[in-house]
Amino acid sequence: MTAQAPTQRLGPEDGLARVFELAQQLRVDSVRASTSAGSGHPTSSLSAADLMAVLMTRHLRYDWDDPGNPANDHLVFSKGHASPLLYAMFRAAGVVGEDELVDTYRRFGARLQGHPTPVLPWVDVATGSLGQGIAYAVGIALAGRDLEAQPYRVWTLCGDSEMAEGSVWEAVDKAGRHRLANFTAVVDVNRLGQCGPTELGWDIAAYARRVEAFDCRAITVDGHDLEAVDRALTIASDGQAPTVVVARTVKGQGVTEVADHEGWHGKPLPPELAERAVAELGGVRNLLARGPRPPAGTRVQRQPAGPVELPRYEVGEAVATRSAFGKALAALGARPDVVVLDAEVGNSTHTEDFKKACPERYVQTYIAEQQMIATAVGMAARGYRTYAATFAAFLTRAHDFIRMAAVSQATVALCGSHCGVEIGADGPSQMGLEDLAMMRAVHGSTVLYPADATSATALTAAMADLPGISYLRTTRGAYPVLYAPDETFPVGGSKTPRRSDRDTVTLVGAGVTLHECLAAADRLADEGIRARVVDLYSVKPLDGETLARSARETGALVVAEDHHPEGGIGEAVQSALTAQRLAPTLTHLAVTVLPGSGTTAELLDEAGISRAHIARAARELVQR
Amino acid sequence: MTAQAPTQRLGPEDGLARVFELAQQLRVDSVRASTSAGSGHPTSSLSAADLMAVLMTRHLRYDWDDPGNPANDHLVFSKGHASPLLYAMFRAAGVVGEDELVDTYRRFGARLQGHPTPVLPWVDVATGSLGQGIAYAVGIALAGRDLEAQPYRVWTLCGDSEMAEGSVWEAVDKAGRHRLANFTAVVDVNRLGQCGPTELGWDIAAYARRVEAFDCRAITVDGHDLEAVDRALTIASDGQAPTVVVARTVKGQGVTEVADHEGWHGKPLPPELAERAVAELGGVRNLLARGPRPPAGTRVQRQPAGPVELPRYEVGEAVATRSAFGKALAALGARPDVVVLDAEVGNSTHTEDFKKACPERYVQTYIAEQQMIATAVGMAARGYRTYAATFAAFLTRAHDFIRMAAVSQATVALCGSHCGVEIGADGPSQMGLEDLAMMRAVHGSTVLYPADATSATALTAAMADLPGISYLRTTRGAYPVLYAPDETFPVGGSKTPRRSDRDTVTLVGAGVTLHECLAAADRLADEGIRARVVDLYSVKPLDGETLARSARETGALVVAEDHHPEGGIGEAVQSALTAQRLAPTLTHLAVTVLPGSGTTAELLDEAGISRAHIARAARELVQR
Repeated sequence: MTAQAPTQRLGPEDGLARVFELAQQLRVDSVRASTSAGSGHPTSSLSAADLMAVLMTRHLRYDWDDPGNPANDHLVFSKGHASPLLYAMFRAAGVVGEDELVDTYRRFGARLQGHPTPVLPWVDVATGSLGQGIAYAVGIALAGRDLEAQPYRVWTLCGDSEMAEGSVWEAVDKAGRHRLANFTAVVDVNRLGQCGPTELGWDIAAYARRVEAFDCRAITVDGHDLEAVDRALTIASDGQAPTVVVARTVKGQGVTEVADHEGWHGKPLPPELAERAVAELGGVRNLLARGPRPPAGTRVQRQPAGPVELPRYEVGEAVATRSAFGKALAALGARPDVVVLDAEVGNSTHTEDFKKACPERYVQTYIAEQQMIATAVGMAARGYRTYAATFAAFLTRAHDFIRMAAVSQATVALCGSHCGVEIGADGPSQMGLEDLAMMRAVHGSTVLYPADATSATALTAAMADLPGISYLRTTRGAYPVLYAPDETFPVGGSKTPRRSDRDTVTLVGAGVTLHECLAAADRLADEGIRARVVDLYSVKPLDGETLARSARETGALVVAEDHHPEGGIGEAVQSALTAQRLAPTLTHLAVTVLPGSGTTAELLDEAGISRAHIARAARELVQR
Repeated sequence: MTAQAPTQRLGPEDGLARVFELAQQLRVDSVRASTSAGSGHPTSSLSAADLMAVLMTRHLRYDWDDPGNPANDHLVFSKGHASPLLYAMFRAAGVVGEDELVDTYRRFGARLQGHPTPVLPWVDVATGSLGQGIAYAVGIALAGRDLEAQPYRVWTLCGDSEMAEGSVWEAVDKAGRHRLANFTAVVDVNRLGQCGPTELGWDIAAYARRVEAFDCRAITVDGHDLEAVDRALTIASDGQAPTVVVARTVKGQGVTEVADHEGWHGKPLPPELAERAVAELGGVRNLLARGPRPPAGTRVQRQPAGPVELPRYEVGEAVATRSAFGKALAALGARPDVVVLDAEVGNSTHTEDFKKACPERYVQTYIAEQQMIATAVGMAARGYRTYAATFAAFLTRAHDFIRMAAVSQATVALCGSHCGVEIGADGPSQMGLEDLAMMRAVHGSTVLYPADATSATALTAAMADLPGISYLRTTRGAYPVLYAPDETFPVGGSKTPRRSDRDTVTLVGAGVTLHECLAAADRLADEGIRARVVDLYSVKPLDGETLARSARETGALVVAEDHHPEGGIGEAVQSALTAQRLAPTLTHLAVTVLPGSGTTAELLDEAGISRAHIARAARELVQR
């Protein structure tokens, strides 16, 4: 199965008969790569090979020698499992060698992973969780048109099974609403999913109706009729409307023994069958396909950053951290790379402060949290520093997108407001009580949870320069400012607002429980018990050193958090101490009840995380 | 603001002028409750009052004296923030008193919470996270028609803002696909969201196009024209098609000072304005509204449960836990209350074994994980024991639904397959590395993670009788059966497959790492180090007693897990030991790298959780 033919160049000027040769090469290479790997999705690759052959030779304007060219079109494989096809395209483009494709696909340490990730320079975002690539594509297209005024187009290849994901319709809705004429999705309707026929089968008219109802242009086409495909992609490129090309295809097209057969999803062809398949497909080819080049770069120079003047707060004034977050964002607007996204709660999260300052870099995604995160990730792929905010509870809606953003190694700042039982009367549906567990467990994440406006301001600003996924947890109510404006809050640090040399217990809090810890320390002081108080504003990374010192010096800790006991601050503290081979006596207070409505004070008390409970726990530890 | 008029009865036979009086009463009571509470959403209630007045007097067939009547229609407020309206309906039905409505709404300990939850006997599911109620309604409707053959209808009230959620379109798609003629959604298109105009404003034709494209019947209507509303609901009840009534309404309808005004979302009317509003609405009324009664119950007696004969496995044979899960499910099919749901990966999770045994209780939701969970929760509200399974990684897609299911105190069994780097070549997009953190942090959850087929079988069966949200984590690869068929695996227990009186270290694993721990113990034994091995098949609740005993007896623990370090087994173990005031030396091995593709062995080793790493960590602890 080694290459026979000499390298032959293929370009936009070549006829469709030659493009078909390329399609067959893509098929052959998809079969070869997956059979060699012993896993992968050849049949899902074969169905889309004609579509991609036409795209890459005639429509995708891409400088393969310079993937960093800002005018390059973008191609997102929303059906990430068709990675053999994508990698076969890379081989056809001459940027991946035959050996790498055939011998390293899906192997340990290889960059040609089972599903595409941005370890490859031609891949913007990781895919493989279905219904996501199209959503990122919307973000990339929006950045190109509205932020950068770049001429690039964004192409995305979707599977038909993934059209059952609601997130796809959030994406199509936004493409339509924003009239993203630089956006084209190609849906590979091969009729067969993992478990048999898809929901809509080959009813391409049904897909088209849905697309049009969501205000995009739909073009139906036979996905193996190269002329029709070429026509459809030409129309899609006319700059008139966001377009979804709905292509009827055959899964396994070109290989009689598997074409349109059930039972061949996600299975490599066994070696003998692969050999017959390659023969049927006309054997190994060595076509080098180079399509149109991007238009000469019209890179708009970003405005130079103005001075960022962060708000300052007086110690003692009552300010909500969510409000401080909003005001800090508005100040950060002086940086032209900062973009803020809302899911129609901007007057609650206070992102609307940024909207007032920089309306041109404020993106309203309405109540579509998945698309909010996807837009942020797409824009991040273009180099923007995106902040996306909603209620902490509703970030769970986008958990899979956040997880995948980490696989993309994207840089995105998230804010979850209205955390914990602190919010009061709205009740449990609105209370973020799982968000710390969710965000801590994200690969490479940073988790911040300020207790006052000064620290919230500093941490919001710090997030603009943090790599990876960072998360700021903000609180609904207003609490006294604790820190003077010039205090610093390094990520991974902590504060010790109350300490003496004779402390016999350490109270660890963050956010609202830090204020409860301070109040508890006052009560304990009245009783002659000296309590140290640690403000754990940086939950991940954690200031293990300060905690260890406090543990050693006071011998006992009370950790109180407005979160369920699992995966939050208490467990983070225990992990940090265990890692240092320390084991102080520790009482962990967290929300174990199912809360209802009530005032903040009532709910904190019911949950066992109020000043009274903290003081009692400390008393018990000291008196033990 | 106390009641003036005597109680007057109102029923289906009354004219629409009287129904309008009821609508005004619902408005007055919505205003009164929220003003008294000092929070809530009166304007979002006022827009839908006419719709609900017509529904409750003429169409909702409900025995208010017996909410447990299985033939009762269901009403789900997908726009849960309109709780004042829902509770005003309860007052109009005579099941909630005026005092309770006006004086307890949103108060601590009250059942009339900020958003509806099933602590109220007339509420099936908790709502308040938008885009969910309509999805649960689909599940309830599906149960009524396909499982129970009950004549009830399911009504759901949606807001227009939530129509931007992809989950809504998953729900409409499923209502259409299943031709759920017992399903009606009423969309209250009041044009104004939390932050100003909604995406589609008053374009009710656009909503109708989308609904029809997703194969439901759409009826557009002026939501304040009672006759038109009555006509629409009559059509919706004709048993012909799933229907979405798209109603053009005015936010704050009936109160001139707020009607169609921006800036009044989620704000109670200040007392003086409330007084003027009540006056404008005609003052306090005391109408007792009773609509049609449900048809005489035709409760189908469920088949008596057949004997559940669980599969048995020989110690030593290689079986994947996902396979054992599927076979156990098939056996549990003998219980007629068991329903299994798939998101088009049933041949991977092995739920398809159940499909073969009980196709009539197998629900294919295609790749729509949110709707899969919602259908499970909706069916659980009808008393079914639902199991829903997909890849562990893709359960994150439904995190918000799982969170809300816990608020509903629903009983649902979940299974996440393909956990961890163990899956190998498919790469990080398919690896569940956050699922334990997610599932542990769910209120009242049970988290199980069997290492072999025998325990997987027993735990799958145990889930059928567990209350709340339970979760089973299964593994892709086949591993030796460790336990004889008659071993028991109580929830909250553990196994100690390797132990002696001279153990100097305890190795704690679950799933694949349990096998790695056993292999490491073998290596250590060769070196003369006796290692105890604990199988933590029950991650929540955790067998703290056994861990504490092992910690005391061996003095050192190594915990290895195929999961990110945050929120998983390692932190669960540390929490359990801390709670017992124990602090053994503990080394925690977890996945901190961003994995790629590779073989299981390569990836376990790269992640530092392989037998070699476990043995090394144990060695270091023993030699310290």
